[in-house]
Amino acid sequence: MSVKKKDNKFQEQFISFLQQKGFIWGPEPELYGGLAGFYTYAPLGKRLKNNVENRIRSVFQKNDMWEVECPTIMQKEVWQASGHLDNFTDPLVACSKCNASFRADKLIEEKYDDVVADAFSEKELLDFINDKKIKCPVCGSQFIQEIKQHNLMMKTTIGTKIEAYNRPETATTTYLPFIRYVDYFRKKIPFGVFQIGKAYRNEISPRQHVLRMREFTQAEGQMFIFKEQKNNFERYDLIKESKLPLWSHQLQDTSKEPKMISVSDAMKKGYLKNQAYAWSVNLAYTLFREIGIPEEYIRLRQHTPGELAFYADDAWDLEIKTNSFGWVECCGIHDRTDYDLTQHAKASGKKLEALDENNEKTVPNILEIAFGTDRPVFALLDITYNQAEDRTVLFVPYNLAPIQVAVLPLVKRDGLDTIAKELFNKLNGKFIAYYDEGGSVGRRYARMDEKGTPYIITTDTDTLTDNSVTIRDRNSTKQIRIQLEDVPDVLDNLFSSKKQFEDLGKIIE
Amino acid sequence: MSVKKKDNKFQEQFISFLQQKGFIWGPEPELYGGLAGFYTYAPLGKRLKNNVENRIRSVFQKNDMWEVECPTIMQKEVWQASGHLDNFTDPLVACSKCNASFRADKLIEEKYDDVVADAFSEKELLDFINDKKIKCPVCGSQFIQEIKQHNLMMKTTIGTKIEAYNRPETATTTYLPFIRYVDYFRKKIPFGVFQIGKAYRNEISPRQHVLRMREFTQAEGQMFIFKEQKNNFERYDLIKESKLPLWSHQLQDTSKEPKMISVSDAMKKGYLKNQAYAWSVNLAYTLFREIGIPEEYIRLRQHTPGELAFYADDAWDLEIKTNSFGWVECCGIHDRTDYDLTQHAKASGKKLEALDENNEKTVPNILEIAFGTDRPVFALLDITYNQAEDRTVLFVPYNLAPIQVAVLPLVKRDGLDTIAKELFNKLNGKFIAYYDEGGSVGRRYARMDEKGTPYIITTDTDTLTDNSVTIRDRNSTKQIRIQLEDVPDVLDNLFSSKKQFEDLGKIIE
Repeated sequence: MSVKKKDNKFQEQFISFLQQKGFIWGPEPELYGGLAGFYTYAPLGKRLKNNVENRIRSVFQKNDMWEVECPTIMQKEVWQASGHLDNFTDPLVACSKCNASFRADKLIEEKYDDVVADAFSEKELLDFINDKKIKCPVCGSQFIQEIKQHNLMMKTTIGTKIEAYNRPETATTTYLPFIRYVDYFRKKIPFGVFQIGKAYRNEISPRQHVLRMREFTQAEGQMFIFKEQKNNFERYDLIKESKLPLWSHQLQDTSKEPKMISVSDAMKKGYLKNQAYAWSVNLAYTLFREIGIPEEYIRLRQHTPGELAFYADDAWDLEIKTNSFGWVECCGIHDRTDYDLTQHAKASGKKLEALDENNEKTVPNILEIAFGTDRPVFALLDITYNQAEDRTVLFVPYNLAPIQVAVLPLVKRDGLDTIAKELFNKLNGKFIAYYDEGGSVGRRYARMDEKGTPYIITTDTDTLTDNSVTIRDRNSTKQIRIQLEDVPDVLDNLFSSKKQFEDLGKIIE
Repeated sequence: MSVKKKDNKFQEQFISFLQQKGFIWGPEPELYGGLAGFYTYAPLGKRLKNNVENRIRSVFQKNDMWEVECPTIMQKEVWQASGHLDNFTDPLVACSKCNASFRADKLIEEKYDDVVADAFSEKELLDFINDKKIKCPVCGSQFIQEIKQHNLMMKTTIGTKIEAYNRPETATTTYLPFIRYVDYFRKKIPFGVFQIGKAYRNEISPRQHVLRMREFTQAEGQMFIFKEQKNNFERYDLIKESKLPLWSHQLQDTSKEPKMISVSDAMKKGYLKNQAYAWSVNLAYTLFREIGIPEEYIRLRQHTPGELAFYADDAWDLEIKTNSFGWVECCGIHDRTDYDLTQHAKASGKKLEALDENNEKTVPNILEIAFGTDRPVFALLDITYNQAEDRTVLFVPYNLAPIQVAVLPLVKRDGLDTIAKELFNKLNGKFIAYYDEGGSVGRRYARMDEKGTPYIITTDTDTLTDNSVTIRDRNSTKQIRIQLEDVPDVLDNLFSSKKQFEDLGKIIE
């Protein structure tokens, strides 16, 4: 598959596909006209999202990181200490005539593809807008010469008067049980935890479908590690020869393309500053490869020095090339240093330390792999959606497909439907199966292709005499006859990659 | 296992076990003193919760119900139409002296085990409190003679001025995409959907650990069905001979115990009013059996006529007997009639109808299986936790255990640790595995028993000569020697129940 360019016509057609075919609906509640930035995962989208999230869980777990589930609401004190109450703001400009408000940085970035305006000061934002004569997208008038900082947190009240907020990230809530972790992991540092759950940001103008929502699902991995351990990190050896598509901030000045380079070479060149951080960047890359994003659609972009978040020491973003919106930031790998634990120790009055190798009480650092699951799911759909003249197919990886197998009777008579229904009942539960007897078989194949279903089993008149059925492979559209009673084992073997489709028998011409 | 009585000493010891051993921490954030009604699932608790939720998913899916994920925040109009803004309130009484507020119904129920006060009117609540001379639990003074209705919803703001609320249930958000569902299911009614996700209730006095929280996880299944189809429900035939522990409201007057009775007999006696509702009650029971709650710990209790929720036509609760808190309501099966769709049609101005068998536009009814995942997880832990003199064991079902297998070297030398570590690396990813080399082997066995780990593999000096290891079974504590290279297959066979532990070889005496 080659990387296509950002494409507005594609975008429109693709998002309509998501709505019509039962992947993602919204903005929700559609019935009430919709609230910008809120979406519903429809049955197929939700199954895909679950599969992606379970794969993420399994990769984290395999890398000795343990999942926790922390509250999504916490009181003011927490967000004061974390810095979010003061700093988690977006710079807004308002139109002098129609009064509409816009994020100043996004306004610039959407007009100027090459500009990264995140890190602009208020003055730089205003200067840029004036220099380039950017006008209100609604009414075309001038903007008021003032940046207003809009806090992104959603406030609520607990009990009758406790000020609290829906969390703007999982990360902070993951850090707070630090003392419990130290005990749970029996004082062994480094240790890793992660959280997959909701976060909330009151964006002033949510857009780009599920890419910038007000409610979204984050998946954030956190490693607690002493500073001294970062360059003495045992697991580094396991990954040092892996290759990563790195686009360092130096390279960004001279090249439009990242370079495939081994982790150890990147360390030698100073692109990645220590072993544990390099390991984290590699894990992020592994996570996205494992959820089915093709290699050529991923790049790792280093933040420029001016672009760093207020808590970060170094940062790389993992970006995915989508057909709908071009390159999209999907994950950040941050060295948060001891910022968070120090802040929360100060605010809570409790020591957040552990014993290091010299038996000294020390505040660990935190290395973070921060991403969400909405963007990768969107990207996966965007990249694998293929509308050609003859057929529309979702080429989603076989073992992530929302529906694994469909069972169809060729025609709805002569008992073919009864046999198909029995087979469906046998498969369902063990596999995600789907039964469909409505309409021509060609139409039904087409419907399953759109859903990305890897295999279709069809009963036909031969089934009545020799107990065989056809199995059809989505990607090749080829069919092979197999025995009815072998279907569960055949599917098992195919999904576990113990067998290839072509090994099942003779392709039907 | 016999059903034990509610036990305060057990409760204390058990909740401390959950905290100490890494199951559930809180109230969170503990670091900031804790906010009542918010908890963190620690690594072991989270894994168990995931396993329970995935089992629920799979049972729903097998019963042709499809998962969706809807926003957890919706605007005011939605909650006005659903009735929550007006009716979703708790009756509070306040102390005349210390000003503390309490839920009047719970105040009564906690003092009088046999009284169900949910359905009491304001006058009945006050009369009961006065009759029984119930005083403020904090300072012992009299209550003010007034019931205040406290709305349970958590309010927030979207954008700069849109009034919105964290959802108090998943159900309403699940109903709103009705028009999309009709299209997705190709106009075939009945159809079923479900949602597993967060809901929020601003309880005035959250208590009983994770049983009554302010933020919790719901799992609610919804079947959309025409009224006429309820007694012509195809899938009823598949379950009519199943037996259920029914405690009808008539029986509640005469007996402390439910009766095991087949679904068809319950229909004949009029306990369950139609086939589709009976099927739903049976599915609820199946769900809880499938997540490992033993038969003798479950009863199905019918609501008394005065107890019905404002939207419900009939209702049964599934209750679980816990050692910590006695019988706990864990699930409600409700016939919500056409209440919700009619309300949202009125409020949105859109028709929420589908074509019935007579080709007439009709508003379907909704049958709901409403439960959460926190209570079953708590109940499962509570029921399977067993502290005896010689060992503390969590007898959680093998295939729901947070950690599936542990690998230990008998001693940390002679290469036993290297072999064990290699085996761990081979198993981890395929299974949830755990490596432990710290402390005496007895102590390490004990630690794995507390975590509920079904199998422990140990390398010892014999491993060096004949490549064999021991596998230990949690429940029996028996051990058998197997070959190192067979371990993955052996575990596969045990977890898929293809083999019994005793079939693996000779028990070591």
